[in-house]
Amino acid sequence: MEISVPLPTLLLKFGSSSFLNWTTVIALTLFFTLLCACIVIGHLLEENRWANESFTALLLGLCSGVVVLLVTKGKNSHILSFSEELFFIYLLPPIIFNAGFQVKKKQFFRNFSIILLFGALGTLISFCIISLGAFLLFKRIGVSSLKLQDYLAVGAILSATDSVCTLQVLNQDETPLLYSLVFGEGVVNDATSIVLFNAVQTLDFSNIDVLIALKLLGTFLYLFFTSTILGITVGLVSAYVIKTLYFGRHSTDREVAIMMLMAYLSYMLAELASLSGILTVFFCGIVMSHYTWHNVTESSRVTTKHAFATISFIAETFIFLYVGMDALDIDKWKASKSSAARSIGISSTLLALVLVGRAAFVFPLANIANLFRSRSVTKIELRQQFIIWWAGLMRGAVTIALSYNEFAGSSSTATADYALMITSTIIVVLFSTLVFGSVTKPLIEALLFRHSHPVNTDASEIHSLEDLRFLFLENGEPNDESNLPPPPKRSNLSLLIRYPTSTVHYFWRKFDDRYMRPVFGGRGFMPYVPSSPTGAEAGTSSN
Amino acid sequence: MEISVPLPTLLLKFGSSSFLNWTTVIALTLFFTLLCACIVIGHLLEENRWANESFTALLLGLCSGVVVLLVTKGKNSHILSFSEELFFIYLLPPIIFNAGFQVKKKQFFRNFSIILLFGALGTLISFCIISLGAFLLFKRIGVSSLKLQDYLAVGAILSATDSVCTLQVLNQDETPLLYSLVFGEGVVNDATSIVLFNAVQTLDFSNIDVLIALKLLGTFLYLFFTSTILGITVGLVSAYVIKTLYFGRHSTDREVAIMMLMAYLSYMLAELASLSGILTVFFCGIVMSHYTWHNVTESSRVTTKHAFATISFIAETFIFLYVGMDALDIDKWKASKSSAARSIGISSTLLALVLVGRAAFVFPLANIANLFRSRSVTKIELRQQFIIWWAGLMRGAVTIALSYNEFAGSSSTATADYALMITSTIIVVLFSTLVFGSVTKPLIEALLFRHSHPVNTDASEIHSLEDLRFLFLENGEPNDESNLPPPPKRSNLSLLIRYPTSTVHYFWRKFDDRYMRPVFGGRGFMPYVPSSPTGAEAGTSSN
Repeated sequence: MEISVPLPTLLLKFGSSSFLNWTTVIALTLFFTLLCACIVIGHLLEENRWANESFTALLLGLCSGVVVLLVTKGKNSHILSFSEELFFIYLLPPIIFNAGFQVKKKQFFRNFSIILLFGALGTLISFCIISLGAFLLFKRIGVSSLKLQDYLAVGAILSATDSVCTLQVLNQDETPLLYSLVFGEGVVNDATSIVLFNAVQTLDFSNIDVLIALKLLGTFLYLFFTSTILGITVGLVSAYVIKTLYFGRHSTDREVAIMMLMAYLSYMLAELASLSGILTVFFCGIVMSHYTWHNVTESSRVTTKHAFATISFIAETFIFLYVGMDALDIDKWKASKSSAARSIGISSTLLALVLVGRAAFVFPLANIANLFRSRSVTKIELRQQFIIWWAGLMRGAVTIALSYNEFAGSSSTATADYALMITSTIIVVLFSTLVFGSVTKPLIEALLFRHSHPVNTDASEIHSLEDLRFLFLENGEPNDESNLPPPPKRSNLSLLIRYPTSTVHYFWRKFDDRYMRPVFGGRGFMPYVPSSPTGAEAGTSSN
Repeated sequence: MEISVPLPTLLLKFGSSSFLNWTTVIALTLFFTLLCACIVIGHLLEENRWANESFTALLLGLCSGVVVLLVTKGKNSHILSFSEELFFIYLLPPIIFNAGFQVKKKQFFRNFSIILLFGALGTLISFCIISLGAFLLFKRIGVSSLKLQDYLAVGAILSATDSVCTLQVLNQDETPLLYSLVFGEGVVNDATSIVLFNAVQTLDFSNIDVLIALKLLGTFLYLFFTSTILGITVGLVSAYVIKTLYFGRHSTDREVAIMMLMAYLSYMLAELASLSGILTVFFCGIVMSHYTWHNVTESSRVTTKHAFATISFIAETFIFLYVGMDALDIDKWKASKSSAARSIGISSTLLALVLVGRAAFVFPLANIANLFRSRSVTKIELRQQFIIWWAGLMRGAVTIALSYNEFAGSSSTATADYALMITSTIIVVLFSTLVFGSVTKPLIEALLFRHSHPVNTDASEIHSLEDLRFLFLENGEPNDESNLPPPPKRSNLSLLIRYPTSTVHYFWRKFDDRYMRPVFGGRGFMPYVPSSPTGAEAGTSSN
């Protein structure tokens, strides 16, 4: 008889939409509760110099992992297992787009050459050192079943720095030079290490030769340029569409929607064309903040600025929560069949290799770059080099995603060693984020702000503006304010060689004002712009 | 030899993150491109009185369905098959939350009793008529294999009106009374029809009796009140947390993030507790716009107002695109094995039943409601009743989701008839949205705005404010401005009976000012509020 059904059962039957998977609902509820907790706790710890949001999220993730482990009596530790698709399709794009959207473009492009040097050549050096080190050291600890390809994969996996944590630890306003160097490197590094990783997975390394190496280089360059061009193109299309149709006349929501959709579309198009979505969406963000953002209504501007930042913020917190919860994946720990000593041995070897691999390119490359910087104020000081080295030591979700991809799915006989590699990667990620990450802020304060004389991070910018005024006395414009004798009019080429950054910047501005802005809008096209997404710096210039 | 690998293949191997599923990338790229196209085309058709965004999205979805059908040579018509989880977890909650967030609260609560009457009793009447009609008529067309339960399910499925399309067709500022009635009914209707549908799926209707019917009623009431209370509680918690911690001091992004997360959390908590997530998230939206929204910084206010609207807008467009693409699901059409005449017969029967079922409760219930409305200006006129009837005829994604749930998964022998039911439902949804939807706007113009004398939609509001001033002469306050003799001081009870809405409103405002606002913030607590999410009406009152 149906009549005897008690009320709670009736409720369960009638009330809930039976279309929803019960586990999904539980997992999502738990995750959203934890995200709220992260934000509140992160806010309360705001004044604390050691903690940051990543730190809180990781710890909270670990704690809930422990709770789940206790509740399920050791059977299960994570609600959702780490999904590469979730990470690469939904979480990473908004973070990188927002970084491009809010980055101080002038700083970024001034240091473009050194960013490329660090991100591409530096990652390659780090990859070689970590692979070689693992190959030489692992056998002594007792890991013997790995193939040559696996060692190379370890190198690629641990060369991927974590740009998300960097964003939280460094402050764009306080240390703009360091921020743009470390973060810019992180974006290029992401692309490089993913290219390296895919190359390692597909190439037959037993008969490698110069031609393959050259082809690899060619592929990297091709990827870099096409991805960048695609990002710029999508950004310009969005600017043109919004300027031509002028949505704001009718609806703020349409403008915001089209900006969000086009940004995401750039990432998807890049993935569809087998390019680097990370690079594409980053440059799309830069172009959108330079052109599109200035074509929309005032309320659209406020909304996009904060909505992009919020979505990125939620995605970042989500990732760390996720990694923290996933770290206690009990099956992996069991499968590694490893003694604690052996686990610690592998993890600390990997950590040491990460430290050495990064030092091996930061200090030499920074000093090489200094050779080309004429004035002493623009040189990268030793303590700045130290911070660049330190701030790039964190490993994050990209590392975990790559590690799972290499070591989890394969039906190899070396299962125990493969599981050991995954758990060791997790330990490296946790340790580097928790320890290195929490030390970074106090370290920067101790190294940079304790000194009474002003730091040279912003000085370079002022000098470059003076350069511009000083160098380009075009069309016979009198230069009465300067007491110096008017310099001889040099050819563009010689200027380019002597003051490369300023010259490129100057010609870019001329080109931008004459050809780009009339077509794509941007600042100067709209009557009045109170603030720009890059914040305080916008008052002077935004390119 | 690896050397002979051509460049494009190398690119495919190295470039793309191999972690992404190829089909997902293609589907997402296509979807985002189509979404952008919908927005641009919708903008260009803005001035067109017949088209609206749902219309464009549905047609564009149909067209791309045709293209996919041609490209795959008739094998496949849709990129993503309709997923109930995607719809109920990710698309529906932001739409309903935004509706609650932007709804004109005063209008909504003034008509609360009639909204409840329409949404609960009306849906039940419509359910009975459609079920009975289908039971009597289908056998004549040749559909014989359906069970009693299936006919009842058809009634529940086609009683679910589409609040999304209604939102686009009616204008909150032009016809506030109609908007609040039709939309409010839609929200309650969603909850009712889902409860009905679940009841149909689980109950044994061969031995139904009065006790079960009473239990069903009890369940509905329980669901309605607990869902509402949960939504209000989550909203109040968000207001209290933001007011107490005052996030804005530090970060706009945190405030926006916590509002977004708490809103979504309310939906998930309701689903977890087997309540109606739709009702919960709707009331959470109302409470958040009344309290939380006033506790945050100015930029958070602009951001949330537009970001919620944008997300809801994208979700709406996505749903219609999805339904349009899904309509050409070739397997379903083949499985129904039905002649065109039989298909059209079933579909037009269902459409006729929808028309009759809605007429059967709108006109009687509106006239019953008119009996309780004392002044003639607050009565619902016949042409308004006609528009209420017409605007609620659209069927949408909820109908399709329920139809798939009932007829797609089951391993019944009546496969052909079941597939026929799905295709007929799709035809009803397409026809009602495209034809009824596009006629609604011109119909409203023709019926309401052609008349020269002012429409009474807003008149009731002014009268109620006068009521308040006139009726409540509390604490012996002199009423010099009025020439009327001071009315005898009546008891609260007699006021409540004579002027129920105004009295409740008055006491609610007193309670709100004295107890709620000091704890949860809200307007009057913050020094200055330029605009409210409800828009123009905010200047006078927001509750």
